[in-house]
Amino acid sequence: MTLSKPVQKAAGANPLDRLAKALKPDLDAVNALILSRMQSDIPLIPELAGHLIAAGGKRIRPLMTLASAALFGYKGNRHHRLSACVEFIHTATLLHDDVVDESDQRRGKASANALFGNEAAVLVGDFLFSRSFQLMVEDGSLDVLRILSNASAVIAEGEVLQLSTANNLDTTMDEYIQVISAKTAELFAAACEVGAIVAERAPAECEAIRNYGMYLGIGFQISDDVLDYSASEELLGKSLGDDFREGKMTLPVLLALEKATPEERAFWQRTMGDVNQQEGDFKEALRLFERYNALGRSMDIARDYAARGRKLLNDLPANVFRDDLSDLMTFAVEREY
Amino acid sequence: MTLSKPVQKAAGANPLDRLAKALKPDLDAVNALILSRMQSDIPLIPELAGHLIAAGGKRIRPLMTLASAALFGYKGNRHHRLSACVEFIHTATLLHDDVVDESDQRRGKASANALFGNEAAVLVGDFLFSRSFQLMVEDGSLDVLRILSNASAVIAEGEVLQLSTANNLDTTMDEYIQVISAKTAELFAAACEVGAIVAERAPAECEAIRNYGMYLGIGFQISDDVLDYSASEELLGKSLGDDFREGKMTLPVLLALEKATPEERAFWQRTMGDVNQQEGDFKEALRLFERYNALGRSMDIARDYAARGRKLLNDLPANVFRDDLSDLMTFAVEREY
Repeated sequence: MTLSKPVQKAAGANPLDRLAKALKPDLDAVNALILSRMQSDIPLIPELAGHLIAAGGKRIRPLMTLASAALFGYKGNRHHRLSACVEFIHTATLLHDDVVDESDQRRGKASANALFGNEAAVLVGDFLFSRSFQLMVEDGSLDVLRILSNASAVIAEGEVLQLSTANNLDTTMDEYIQVISAKTAELFAAACEVGAIVAERAPAECEAIRNYGMYLGIGFQISDDVLDYSASEELLGKSLGDDFREGKMTLPVLLALEKATPEERAFWQRTMGDVNQQEGDFKEALRLFERYNALGRSMDIARDYAARGRKLLNDLPANVFRDDLSDLMTFAVEREY
Repeated sequence: MTLSKPVQKAAGANPLDRLAKALKPDLDAVNALILSRMQSDIPLIPELAGHLIAAGGKRIRPLMTLASAALFGYKGNRHHRLSACVEFIHTATLLHDDVVDESDQRRGKASANALFGNEAAVLVGDFLFSRSFQLMVEDGSLDVLRILSNASAVIAEGEVLQLSTANNLDTTMDEYIQVISAKTAELFAAACEVGAIVAERAPAECEAIRNYGMYLGIGFQISDDVLDYSASEELLGKSLGDDFREGKMTLPVLLALEKATPEERAFWQRTMGDVNQQEGDFKEALRLFERYNALGRSMDIARDYAARGRKLLNDLPANVFRDDLSDLMTFAVEREY
């Protein structure tokens, strides 16, 4: 594989960990809010929501709101509630995703739908989604409500679009970027923008950090899609090839398809279009990626987004948070798991 | 069966039809908004949403917002957008309900999940839900946002609670009322309240029309639950006994259970608890209802809610809309289909 080696920093220097450490009091406040606001008199709700929320996840999206607010020197605490909103929207999306994907696993544990049933997963997702709007209304900013309700609609549109691209070899590169922009990057963008909004920054700055979040999300998702073919299974914490087995049309496949011979196209049609797979097919997919440098070229595209994201930070306040966000952009793309 | 005969009015005098006729320009504006705002660049979204929205339904909930606004003499057009919100929330709920119930039919047509798959039904429901929040944000009233985001959360809680009462013979009457208040009546209440809010009425009036909507929803749902055992199949447009077959613990069953002999309780446990049903079981259920007048007593309870609802209207402006809302309360409970 022609992946250039990621730049390794000293242990513990992962920018996500650095941000989480620098913003620990805020993150603790967000976690406390998440726990208290996922409560309900209906016991199944905190039980099921807690399963997923406790399962961890790195709170990357709420951390983006906190980091953006910190970058812009915000001193209040509105961002705590809004970070919880962002995490609730994300959790609701995960719950519905798992129902859609019929997943048995999430973050290395049994998924909520596998444990509690699809019905409960759908309905608790709806509850968390409603709860996130209640939190926004408590905040009272119509700008924030506009940003996050738009994000929710765009995420749902992206998920529906992804349904129609699955197993479809005619999916275009534009459609792929549209799907990942909507289903993944939009929430990163909104999370960042909300941090600037609470800090009452000028529209140009709000837009810059929003676009940074968008590029971060796109880079993050392309990297995810590459890792599904190339990661060390031990580091990834799950088995490789999920996307292949489901026939998800991700960037490496689209790049390999662009140059495919008729015979190779027939291979992709059988394995990913018709999802008729045999032993050895995954290895053959990797061999075809190698032939066309599909993983390397995917990474080039991800790195291009990362470069654009880092560049946007240039006009924003120069401080330690800007440095961390810049490094995070690199990390999101170059991570090995 | 000991149901007293419903009071029949002259043909065409159904209060729902009267309201729809009196408010036709408003209802047309709402329908136009619904059609234009369910659009998306992702073709599957209007296709699937249109299937359900075109399938009809009587637009009862948006009509409640329009009627409430008219009762209070509102002259603007904010209520059009908010009525569309209410219908989108309702439609999203129906889509998710059908996934949860694994229904094949909705309003006499194939259900959206049966035609388009569960995945699409979940995600388009999410889209409509987000879209309803976008519409509210366009309206810009935090009061409206608070009322409708609370309603959404309460509806989801009600649906989750209903999951845990299904097939559970220990369900209490309080739990039943809690479920139908949340999953059905809350949206009627919110729809009515929003009409008073746009008309900028005093808190006591907002509360009165909200509670009217709550009682209307409770009466409507109890009547629905009775009709599932007693309607003429021809009028109902679907087959009887759906709740029985699914083991839904509705009011008639709870009333029959209260007085059940050990042998009868074993019958309910087998048929509705364990959902182990044989031919003749539905007839036996009807016979037990007859023995304890369970349908008649359910109707008495529904009529009591209706009386409380009508009484609340006394302190509100006396006009033709108040008369229609009063008749609607009766109709919701006494209807034969």
